[in-house]
Amino acid sequence: MADQDQLYAMRHSLAHIMATAIQHLWPEAKFGVGPVVEHGFYYDVDLGDTKLSEDDFAKIEAEMQSVIQANNVFERFTKPVDEAISWAEQAGQPYKVELLNDLKRAGTTIAKDLNADELGTIAEGDSQVDEVSFYKNGDFTDLCRGPHVESTGKVGAFKLQRVSGAYWRGNEKNAQMQRIYGVAFATPKELRQHLDMLEEAKKRDHRKLGQELDLFLFSDMVGSGLPLFTPRGTVIRDQLALFTNSMRERYGFEKVWTPHITKKDLYEASGHWAKFGDELFLVKSQETSDELVMKPMNCPHHTRIYASRPRSYRDMPVRYLETTTDYRDEKTGELGGLNRVRALTQDDSHVFCREDQIEIEINNLLAAAGELYATVGMQLRVRLSYRDESDAYLGPQELWDAAQTQLKNAVVANQLDYYEQTGEAAFYGPKIDFMATDALGREHQVATVQLDFVQPERFGLDYTAEDGSKQQPVMIHSALLGSVERFMSVYIEHTGGKFPVWTAPEQIRIITLNQDDDVVGYAEQLRRQAFDLGLRVTIDNASESVGKKIRAAELYKIPYTVVIGQKEIETGQVTPRVRADMAVNEPIREHSFEEFLGTVANEARARVLKTSL
Amino acid sequence: MADQDQLYAMRHSLAHIMATAIQHLWPEAKFGVGPVVEHGFYYDVDLGDTKLSEDDFAKIEAEMQSVIQANNVFERFTKPVDEAISWAEQAGQPYKVELLNDLKRAGTTIAKDLNADELGTIAEGDSQVDEVSFYKNGDFTDLCRGPHVESTGKVGAFKLQRVSGAYWRGNEKNAQMQRIYGVAFATPKELRQHLDMLEEAKKRDHRKLGQELDLFLFSDMVGSGLPLFTPRGTVIRDQLALFTNSMRERYGFEKVWTPHITKKDLYEASGHWAKFGDELFLVKSQETSDELVMKPMNCPHHTRIYASRPRSYRDMPVRYLETTTDYRDEKTGELGGLNRVRALTQDDSHVFCREDQIEIEINNLLAAAGELYATVGMQLRVRLSYRDESDAYLGPQELWDAAQTQLKNAVVANQLDYYEQTGEAAFYGPKIDFMATDALGREHQVATVQLDFVQPERFGLDYTAEDGSKQQPVMIHSALLGSVERFMSVYIEHTGGKFPVWTAPEQIRIITLNQDDDVVGYAEQLRRQAFDLGLRVTIDNASESVGKKIRAAELYKIPYTVVIGQKEIETGQVTPRVRADMAVNEPIREHSFEEFLGTVANEARARVLKTSL
Repeated sequence: MADQDQLYAMRHSLAHIMATAIQHLWPEAKFGVGPVVEHGFYYDVDLGDTKLSEDDFAKIEAEMQSVIQANNVFERFTKPVDEAISWAEQAGQPYKVELLNDLKRAGTTIAKDLNADELGTIAEGDSQVDEVSFYKNGDFTDLCRGPHVESTGKVGAFKLQRVSGAYWRGNEKNAQMQRIYGVAFATPKELRQHLDMLEEAKKRDHRKLGQELDLFLFSDMVGSGLPLFTPRGTVIRDQLALFTNSMRERYGFEKVWTPHITKKDLYEASGHWAKFGDELFLVKSQETSDELVMKPMNCPHHTRIYASRPRSYRDMPVRYLETTTDYRDEKTGELGGLNRVRALTQDDSHVFCREDQIEIEINNLLAAAGELYATVGMQLRVRLSYRDESDAYLGPQELWDAAQTQLKNAVVANQLDYYEQTGEAAFYGPKIDFMATDALGREHQVATVQLDFVQPERFGLDYTAEDGSKQQPVMIHSALLGSVERFMSVYIEHTGGKFPVWTAPEQIRIITLNQDDDVVGYAEQLRRQAFDLGLRVTIDNASESVGKKIRAAELYKIPYTVVIGQKEIETGQVTPRVRADMAVNEPIREHSFEEFLGTVANEARARVLKTSL
Repeated sequence: MADQDQLYAMRHSLAHIMATAIQHLWPEAKFGVGPVVEHGFYYDVDLGDTKLSEDDFAKIEAEMQSVIQANNVFERFTKPVDEAISWAEQAGQPYKVELLNDLKRAGTTIAKDLNADELGTIAEGDSQVDEVSFYKNGDFTDLCRGPHVESTGKVGAFKLQRVSGAYWRGNEKNAQMQRIYGVAFATPKELRQHLDMLEEAKKRDHRKLGQELDLFLFSDMVGSGLPLFTPRGTVIRDQLALFTNSMRERYGFEKVWTPHITKKDLYEASGHWAKFGDELFLVKSQETSDELVMKPMNCPHHTRIYASRPRSYRDMPVRYLETTTDYRDEKTGELGGLNRVRALTQDDSHVFCREDQIEIEINNLLAAAGELYATVGMQLRVRLSYRDESDAYLGPQELWDAAQTQLKNAVVANQLDYYEQTGEAAFYGPKIDFMATDALGREHQVATVQLDFVQPERFGLDYTAEDGSKQQPVMIHSALLGSVERFMSVYIEHTGGKFPVWTAPEQIRIITLNQDDDVVGYAEQLRRQAFDLGLRVTIDNASESVGKKIRAAELYKIPYTVVIGQKEIETGQVTPRVRADMAVNEPIREHSFEEFLGTVANEARARVLKTSL
């Protein structure tokens, strides 16, 4: 694989090559900015009344290939800003004129409404500039910081992907331009892999699978961002919640329960009201004058339970666990499937501990997270976020230093893939963020472990130390799944809906060969036997052909299917059909039904991941 | 025991006797009304500036005993209303004057602001009256409907209980009077039993035990009626919820999940908004214009899940189960401990079925309720509520008739103690209400099973029948515990905090004999062994005497306590201490620790109720 700088230059050069092709095809085209993005590039163009669609991509791609075959050198030159403005005016490029004028006034102005990458295409640094650089390839010249590849022939493999509307400089009061995206990789093979991945991701879209597998729904009457879970979806929710809870219960966490609303006094005390007050759902009592809000997080509630009893050094750590639904007033436009919802169920937990207990507690949480993600088959990478030297952080410096060391020790002891970032800590304490890689190679931010030196102070929490003095505990916030809904969106796509036995909504489907009383009766007897083992089993007793019933079971991606007829009644043996992805190393064979159930129950209990995701 | 009419007359007569005594002691006393209430009676009196307290009870009771010993006959006579008014005026009884004037205008006026019992002390019927009756005993005469016992000597046993403020006719704009309550029974023995029960109930008050056993708390910052549950209380919540769910899962109910808020559109569609709109918590989005509310019930949400797929007659019944928290905007004054909260977690379920499936579904729900209440050791009694002939009910008459028959069949088949009440159905369908009797003989309304012919209509729910036609399903609402919080308040008092093993927050406490490393290590090893069996075990390793540690365990009413020292390590045997109430028929003996854990795990799994409540 090309190194990252080389790949960046290729993608950046492809943005210029696409602009060159567009100028060839639509000479009146006016250009905005054309940065590199993840997996590729885009360029914003104004083509007047001409509206592009994917149908135009073949034409643009063909013209781009001509430019590439010409193998023109990317030539760099500079001009004073005023000359550059004249050039842009003469070239009929008003957006470039606007950028250059801003740049002339002060480089920093631009930084506010263009992202760093876009800014990067124009000028280095962010202070006022005198000269700007240009790159020329063949008959096309663009204002640009670079870098580029040597010549247009050295750009690897690319494909145009989609076109969408984009307001100039992201402001809806400005002109609407067309943003054309392309993906690009160093080799055709890598491009192919990426396109296959995108194709697969489309098939696995959790909104699509959620509908096909009958997992969840939205209702106009209930409202956007407020999912409802069917019986099948609820099984997955519950299994994930049970698992994340059990990972921590073994380390002494205990479940608590708090209501979903509170007087806003609680968040005034915690400081959240001042910071996030306008992101909360407000709740109005019609019977009292209480001013309430829906809880967006659970830590302040948990401090109330901690504070309800006197605590001694021997009671510490106190560890609370609550998988509960928080409500955040997200803008409707930002909601999407389960990925971003307004009702998010957090697998939240809080440790109240002594300073000398931080390391072991973090260690336990890392071990729990490690086992959880190993079980679901995702690689973990963590970011350690430390404070910098600024005064933006609360709490004593020595406590920060000691805590940061303890955090790192625990990360190293758990042999986690990690990197460190200074200046990324929360103002209330250092933290660890977890990124999990799914089966398609996409990375998702999931779990988090955060130290908090501030809330114990604000709520006046204490414990009696061995010497009789009152001491302030440290709080450790953590969630291993993060939000159950968001994790479900990742998990559905990660598994492609081929859930392993422990999360499969329906683990076994019994299909009757016919509707004879003895067959139906036997199927029901087997179902009860499985139910008593805690297995999720259904019977398909429809008067359809066995083939049709098997296909129906396949549509729901059920791990095991068992056909029951007179033969099975006589022999007491079954030949289970195993879902294709799980059957790779498993020969199909006859079992007694008891033996079969025992195997399935063991897989469920052990949360076996047999599937090739 | 005296029959109920006789007891009623005794209590009613005691109200007169108390009034007689008060008039002897405070001749200026002005009387309001003095009805019979559950277990006794009260009288509202106006004593001007004299404020009564319990210290006055001995004096009043002594004077009442004199009246009783005089054994004066209760003489009945009547007067025309106008003469009665003159009598009351001369007697200096302005409240009686007011009542008589109202009575003269129209008997019905009074019914609106006095309860039936109070009205009953004055006149029969509710139409305008010409004559009113009086009862005279010795030197005391009272306007009264009767009935009374023959003479003051025949009133059984009584005790004054408490005095509280009460506005005349329940209206806070009226004069504040003093309400003196007494309890009364036919025999001293019955009175004693009742007073013992009250004494015991006081000790078992769930608010008191909730604090002593560290089960739940309220926080001023969170708000009234919004309980927070500690780890110990959460175990009980969770165990009860698991149990009530499992009782229905075996009958094919499946868990679903719905958010706690919804656009009010949903309740407009269901009709709840028009009926209960002002009892809901309103939720305001600051980011959108959505008008939301907190859900006060779950049926409309569940109809959305039902309606998200086409349903055929072969899919029916569809059975949803959700133990979820609903929010109701109760007035602060009506809140009390867990008995009445604003965050109530319902163990709610909904069946969508064909008309011919009602009986079997009701049957299953009754069986589930029967097993649940047998397990917690409470007797059940049910009320069958039918429609009357009025037009206050929606849905076809034939459906009502058939459904009421199916309801009764199921109740009879389950051999439940039942009674029937016509005119008590909900407007949307007939219902079954369950009353459970606790260990103190108090009856609590708990579970409910209600048919609903209206919501399926309002939401346009349907299924495809065998003949291809679209049919409307019937809904069956049911909750077996009712509200988990309210049931917990009953359950804590029913058990007196002596929870059986399956709900005990801490099932076993291991007490170390000393702090030697091997003892502490062994205790920890045993704890893990127990934890792996799913048991809730803690270690008390404090450097206190064993006696003190045992007493600490007793305060928490922990079922089993095990002391671990060198001897236990050597022999591998333990001699568990069993909580007194559970040990009645169980000799204390040595077990291997494994055997002991096995026994406890079995008790927990089987939800054994060994305790003598």
